[in-house]
Amino acid sequence: MVDKERHKPQIVATETIAKTRLFRVESVDLYFSNGVETRYERLKTGKHGAVLVVPLLDRNTVLLIREYAVGTDRYELALPKGRVEAGEELLAAANREMMEEVGYGAGRLTYLTSLTVAPGYMGHTTHVIVAEDLYEERRLGDEPEEIEVVPWRLTELSALLAREDCTEARSIAALFMVKEKLTQEENINATRK
Amino acid sequence: MVDKERHKPQIVATETIAKTRLFRVESVDLYFSNGVETRYERLKTGKHGAVLVVPLLDRNTVLLIREYAVGTDRYELALPKGRVEAGEELLAAANREMMEEVGYGAGRLTYLTSLTVAPGYMGHTTHVIVAEDLYEERRLGDEPEEIEVVPWRLTELSALLAREDCTEARSIAALFMVKEKLTQEENINATRK
Repeated sequence: MVDKERHKPQIVATETIAKTRLFRVESVDLYFSNGVETRYERLKTGKHGAVLVVPLLDRNTVLLIREYAVGTDRYELALPKGRVEAGEELLAAANREMMEEVGYGAGRLTYLTSLTVAPGYMGHTTHVIVAEDLYEERRLGDEPEEIEVVPWRLTELSALLAREDCTEARSIAALFMVKEKLTQEENINATRK
Repeated sequence: MVDKERHKPQIVATETIAKTRLFRVESVDLYFSNGVETRYERLKTGKHGAVLVVPLLDRNTVLLIREYAVGTDRYELALPKGRVEAGEELLAAANREMMEEVGYGAGRLTYLTSLTVAPGYMGHTTHVIVAEDLYEERRLGDEPEEIEVVPWRLTELSALLAREDCTEARSIAALFMVKEKLTQEENINATRK
């Protein structure tokens, strides 16, 4: 069904057209295989990507955080996340972010998948890490105020999605994927018994 | 569990610090209720938001599109989406985008939810619209090359998520939500029989 033979457009030229502390906007000149030439803009973000952590307090309880988000100017309820620092391993970054934002470290960290937020104009990639065997450990992050930690049952995902402050697509996608993974594992275990 | 009493930080000042054809970066001075003052940057996008369409060819088949995304510089397999134009209703925008990108119109359009992509630094909101009772109708969009339409069974969501070109978080979240909604409706119908 999927045409793997199509030739990807060529990037003919790129140029940084705006730069601030956090953002860099690049113009990109493209040449499509059908002869169409066009200029797009895209946002360049950090090279190392970001991690999103799914902290499992037990097999049915995930720890969410509720913090102020300046993009939407409201408190958002979502999974903890943050940038990967230069030279930092993904799992180490996930553990650090969780200690800073949730106050827990994990005995077991597992890479689940990688998500993009808006591939049409951002290269930004977020790696989803599942954290289990949690233990209390708090590290100081750069948060301007205390972050509220909200335990939530995975069996009550519908109630979470009905909330006005739970809108962030990566968190929602990750919660569904983890719920499905745990259900599959339980089904396998049930079959074995 | 959730503290509704916390006072939201006050936005003391905002300033546009960079502007290109597509993007506007704003600096925001904030005053938190605990006395902390800080300056953040955020990306301002179009006022009218975007729509993401879940085109259901039948109750188990969704129509995906595979198109080049300059942000990640590769072809991405995802649901059709696009900006809402000034004065345009959400459902009309969804139908237009679907006609332009998928070649179908819908007899029935239903608002499902609204998602954010990165509330920490973007206000961008995407409204998810489910499209049913599809009929063939193609409108010319601004796409530089023909978009490939890929029908996919909702029962084969795991195989889709395992693909390297399916990474976009809003599409993944919407597919899970629609699958769950359809399953619930079937369960209700089965109970009624």
